[in-house]
Amino acid sequence: DAPVALITGPCQLESLDHARMMAEKIAEACAPTGTRFVFKASYDKANRSSLGTARGLGMEAGLEILGRIREEFGVPVLTDVHEPGHCAPAAEICDVLQIPAFLCRQTDLLLAAGETGAAINVKKGQFLAPWDMANVAAKIASTGNDRILLCERGTSFGYNALVSDFRGLPIMERTGHPIVFDATHSVQQPGGQGATSGGQREFAPVLARAAVAVGVSALFIETHQDPDTAPSDGPNMIPVDRMAGLIAELRAFDDLRKGRG
Amino acid sequence: DAPVALITGPCQLESLDHARMMAEKIAEACAPTGTRFVFKASYDKANRSSLGTARGLGMEAGLEILGRIREEFGVPVLTDVHEPGHCAPAAEICDVLQIPAFLCRQTDLLLAAGETGAAINVKKGQFLAPWDMANVAAKIASTGNDRILLCERGTSFGYNALVSDFRGLPIMERTGHPIVFDATHSVQQPGGQGATSGGQREFAPVLARAAVAVGVSALFIETHQDPDTAPSDGPNMIPVDRMAGLIAELRAFDDLRKGRG
Amino acid sequence: DAPVALITGPCQLESLDHARMMAEKIAEACAPTGTRFVFKASYDKANRSSLGTARGLGMEAGLEILGRIREEFGVPVLTDVHEPGHCAPAAEICDVLQIPAFLCRQTDLLLAAGETGAAINVKKGQFLAPWDMANVAAKIASTGNDRILLCERGTSFGYNALVSDFRGLPIMERTGHPIVFDATHSVQQPGGQGATSGGQREFAPVLARAAVAVGVSALFIETHQDPDTAPSDGPNMIPVDRMAGLIAELRAFDDLRKGRG
Amino acid sequence: DAPVALITGPCQLESLDHARMMAEKIAEACAPTGTRFVFKASYDKANRSSLGTARGLGMEAGLEILGRIREEFGVPVLTDVHEPGHCAPAAEICDVLQIPAFLCRQTDLLLAAGETGAAINVKKGQFLAPWDMANVAAKIASTGNDRILLCERGTSFGYNALVSDFRGLPIMERTGHPIVFDATHSVQQPGGQGATSGGQREFAPVLARAAVAVGVSALFIETHQDPDTAPSDGPNMIPVDRMAGLIAELRAFDDLRKGRG
Repeated sequence: DAPVALITGPCQLESLDHARMMAEKIAEACAPTGTRFVFKASYDKANRSSLGTARGLGMEAGLEILGRIREEFGVPVLTDVHEPGHCAPAAEICDVLQIPAFLCRQTDLLLAAGETGAAINVKKGQFLAPWDMANVAAKIASTGNDRILLCERGTSFGYNALVSDFRGLPIMERTGHPIVFDATHSVQQPGGQGATSGGQREFAPVLARAAVAVGVSALFIETHQDPDTAPSDGPNMIPVDRMAGLIAELRAFDDLRKGRG
Repeated sequence: DAPVALITGPCQLESLDHARMMAEKIAEACAPTGTRFVFKASYDKANRSSLGTARGLGMEAGLEILGRIREEFGVPVLTDVHEPGHCAPAAEICDVLQIPAFLCRQTDLLLAAGETGAAINVKKGQFLAPWDMANVAAKIASTGNDRILLCERGTSFGYNALVSDFRGLPIMERTGHPIVFDATHSVQQPGGQGATSGGQREFAPVLARAAVAVGVSALFIETHQDPDTAPSDGPNMIPVDRMAGLIAELRAFDDLRKGRG
Repeated sequence: DAPVALITGPCQLESLDHARMMAEKIAEACAPTGTRFVFKASYDKANRSSLGTARGLGMEAGLEILGRIREEFGVPVLTDVHEPGHCAPAAEICDVLQIPAFLCRQTDLLLAAGETGAAINVKKGQFLAPWDMANVAAKIASTGNDRILLCERGTSFGYNALVSDFRGLPIMERTGHPIVFDATHSVQQPGGQGATSGGQREFAPVLARAAVAVGVSALFIETHQDPDTAPSDGPNMIPVDRMAGLIAELRAFDDLRKGRG
Repeated sequence: DAPVALITGPCQLESLDHARMMAEKIAEACAPTGTRFVFKASYDKANRSSLGTARGLGMEAGLEILGRIREEFGVPVLTDVHEPGHCAPAAEICDVLQIPAFLCRQTDLLLAAGETGAAINVKKGQFLAPWDMANVAAKIASTGNDRILLCERGTSFGYNALVSDFRGLPIMERTGHPIVFDATHSVQQPGGQGATSGGQREFAPVLARAAVAVGVSALFIETHQDPDTAPSDGPNMIPVDRMAGLIAELRAFDDLRKGRG
């Protein structure tokens, strides 16, 4: 088994300079352990809790920035897609297209994403059981694209709360697809701050340790140089200056889990 | 308060003849109590559990049938929309556009629907708290369209199960918008039959009685002449020949709730 | 079907004078509709959230007060029991013994209660499915006592929250036992105020209406002349001066449900 | 931090010979890693799903067997207690008294257990939030006994299902008490087989790995030489011949977590 990889970056693209700065800090944090990462950022937050919050740079500007990061840093890049028509342009730049959790049952979006041939990271809906993801993966695979990642990001647990069910990781693994654990969205408190979602940043490393001990192919961890001023998902992002320490810790558990070193 | 109205019809459009037959039987079931109804049918089931199941007639053929029903029966018609670009054409025919529960946080879809000026029935996501719907309604209202209905259709409760929290009806009512209770989707068992969703048809009248006793403006009840052979949602639809009795019963509770003789 | 009965009284016995005052006010509230009631009060709150809260008068003093109320008002009385050894003495005075929700799986307590021959009102555990109550009832019935009431009082729904699943009422009714809906504990927020439980008093009448529309034999409603100063369960009790109006409203729905008047 | 300890043994005492055989096999499984264990067995299953299932040997016979195991193997022993009056006799033999999850709010039981001076392992109720356990611990500590262990064993998640929320371990740890993770009850499916509870044995090692990676003082793992024929909890117990391998694996994660080796 390959060492655990990272999907990481700021929740939302802010500017080319910001993306460069983040990519550089992430690359530095990953270097000591030789951890591979996919740079993640969204150009459009299409499903925010309320209207009065930042949505992002838009597709064209966002894809251009992602393309520059890809080229300058030599890393694969990921963004999320929200409509079938956005998949082809996004896939011209991005190595991985991500299906948001709320949209993981939208057949047209899954098919359009699959048809690009890009790798597809599907987040499990908060309203789905882990075994329901086999049907989701099958929709994508019907396009002939089997580069599918299945990502756990928390399950509805009462109101304004999520819970991470770690039995879900081996259950989704039965599909044969690599499993990703999203440590920062799993500690979201959806809608928990009225017009935005709250979060419990302090538990992201706790759940990430649990996930690598259970066994995953990749971790999804959003990060920011100053989460409290980030335009979205601040309450659950990891400060980028703590990433090096976190990665080193998680790699040690992953090495043990996968019988290395 | 006006008497409780119905949003009713088959889950999925099958043909013009079928839609006519259903509309006629529904009109007959509503006549004795003078109950007003909106004819509901989907031309595209865009988020089915798995790929190997019927999706429907498509937008063009579907809207034509809905237009015929509207004209021939003199009733308002409703269909659901899944992409921003579908809202305007659907609104040329339909009196009410419906936002599916999984999509109730997709800002672009809510705005596009609102901008048509049609009435908008938004289903509450299975992953949302009732108070979260205030933000959803505000997105639509930002277009200047305040013809908004908020619809309860069950909340995630463990895996492959929903629960109806009747506190949610008065909570959503605080927004000032009329409240709809979806009695047939609330008894769905999402994904509960492997590649399709199961259902507990026998509890739909039970929950509908509870809803009118709590107090609602409308009930959403899918119906079919033979639910067990319907192309979708069979396990939770009400046989159309039981609708007259059900409507009469529910109207009696609604009359009592609203202080009518 | 008999008209819906009430199990009602203050959560906790405070004194003989207080119990008399409450019984008198309740009798007055029930008189206009001829509604029968069982007077309910606890002499020991054995499972409070924290230690620094009032537990009650104790068994001996409590049973004496209940006996006086029974005699003076000619009404059946109910109290809850927490240990097998308390069942026999409680049954000497009380017409109905109540098994608390947390204790509904304790075999010895169920058997001891059953063996007294008193009617037994078992609250469904917040951790149980409605169909699990068949086994609970069978434990009591094994003593030869089939005077069993099954009471819904909310199901765990995330943390510090309950939800009322109204499908549970007809499901429990399949056992053949009368069904009770506890409208005031169903709106508790367990542990929601740190050292005590919170509550949402405003939703108790809402859920009670839903319950009688679904169909129940009795309602359980705690009441107090001044809930905000009550020694326990204040946040969810109904002020006693609103009981007459509430009872009249609920009886109208119950009459409709049961085909009277 | 001390290496993770085990609380382990068969769910239910069957006979002295059986207990000896189990203790011997467990001792062998623990020896290679020098893992300390507490021998756990119940003499009375007081809250089984239904009446027609084995309850156990009874207190007197059970305590005698536990005393023999304690003496012959030189290990501490644990049993659960269900009534205040059982605490003192159980504590004459047992080093640790365990409060069952359903009973974790019963004040008299907590006080009686605390007053024995024995160590007390309290299982978190399936209906409680992790932060609610501070009040539970405070009830025991009020007796002057602070030898308290708090044990996670799953939280209600819909019907007939539990979920393990690993955020709960650090949350409960804030009380200052050692934290135990019960890996075999956490994979129970309560009531899931009609008259008994089901289980998902295959996930117990998965969740146990997650728990030691998060960080715990002890693991609770029930084991049997032939779980499928055990009188209770068979579906979730670990076969004893797999315990050595499991312990070695878990110790490696625990050593990494606690910075040893």
